[in-house]
Amino acid sequence: MTRRGRRPANSQTRAAVMGAARETFAARGYLGATIRQIAATAGVDPSLVLYFFGSKDQLFRTVLTSSVDGRQLLSQLFDGPADELGQRLVTRFLRLWEGDAGATASALLRTAVTEQRFGTLVREHIAPAVTTTLVERVGVDPAQASVRAALLASQLSGLVLARYLLRIEPIASATIDWVAAAIGPTIQRYLTGALPTPPATAPPVLNTG
Amino acid sequence: MTRRGRRPANSQTRAAVMGAARETFAARGYLGATIRQIAATAGVDPSLVLYFFGSKDQLFRTVLTSSVDGRQLLSQLFDGPADELGQRLVTRFLRLWEGDAGATASALLRTAVTEQRFGTLVREHIAPAVTTTLVERVGVDPAQASVRAALLASQLSGLVLARYLLRIEPIASATIDWVAAAIGPTIQRYLTGALPTPPATAPPVLNTG
Repeated sequence: MTRRGRRPANSQTRAAVMGAARETFAARGYLGATIRQIAATAGVDPSLVLYFFGSKDQLFRTVLTSSVDGRQLLSQLFDGPADELGQRLVTRFLRLWEGDAGATASALLRTAVTEQRFGTLVREHIAPAVTTTLVERVGVDPAQASVRAALLASQLSGLVLARYLLRIEPIASATIDWVAAAIGPTIQRYLTGALPTPPATAPPVLNTG
Repeated sequence: MTRRGRRPANSQTRAAVMGAARETFAARGYLGATIRQIAATAGVDPSLVLYFFGSKDQLFRTVLTSSVDGRQLLSQLFDGPADELGQRLVTRFLRLWEGDAGATASALLRTAVTEQRFGTLVREHIAPAVTTTLVERVGVDPAQASVRAALLASQLSGLVLARYLLRIEPIASATIDWVAAAIGPTIQRYLTGALPTPPATAPPVLNTG
């Protein structure tokens, strides 16, 4: 039985699949989304999704990397004088998350937390990009940049968890200005304040994952 | 065909199912774990798991609430003088997470992030328990206790993400003492320091989740 009205395999169709994938991953996360749902939303046959993208894994990576121009985003976030960066960075970060980028970013965070191989994406791409930005744009000592980037990640990722994913009150309902005033000083210290001597490189034995 | 050597429906069997469930949820998370796997690990028929616990959802809640004596845990975490609490709290929190409680706690966090209804568990049970502890044991002004608890959650949950789930270096491999020295001052300020005027109660429109 031929299906009438289905889309042909051209670049418009590819864009429709990308749009459907972005929407479905944002709503259901990586694990919850299926190729079948994405195909139905895009109005195509599931085999066409696989024809364009190969696998759900590959489709998810494509959605992520095409949604976000990482370098431009980081430049925006870290722009301006370093000595007032904390509060400004939190404000910009939350505005971004509450804009178009947020749904995709939430899907990435949910997936990175549950699927080891997407944790790698954060570790190997996002963290090093932030480290580089700290050196180039904020003037952080290169020897401390990765420590400062990791501390920054520890507070911003937890802020996203508390405000958007777990919705813990009153942080979930607070204004961006309030959150920036409360958390800004933490970010400022992590970026430019005094820190304890950098950690030893020998890893402790961790039994959790 | 009767299966020989399967366990009967008694309290030892229930305990074996609980053990298998704890292990399976910790290894695979809520979504990844199946009743079938848990039953196989426990050496029982899947129907017996449902007989004891009703559903995967109910089994997960039972594992969580029976693994952790919340009040005792919170008392331990917040014990001692309030003016040196930050660094001490981070140290104790990380030791707990790297002990027996960590695997279950990681499974809870992963699941709370991906499944809305388990986010509710954190919002409605864990956050209020921390708020009460701040008032009773740390002497926090009741009017500020929920704000301070939410800020605490934003840093500790992000620390767990960065160190254990995303494994961002050098925080993933740093000693507990180093992490406590770096993050302790943040926790101290969130618990006892000056904060901006408490946030307005009117929630902003959030388009992410």
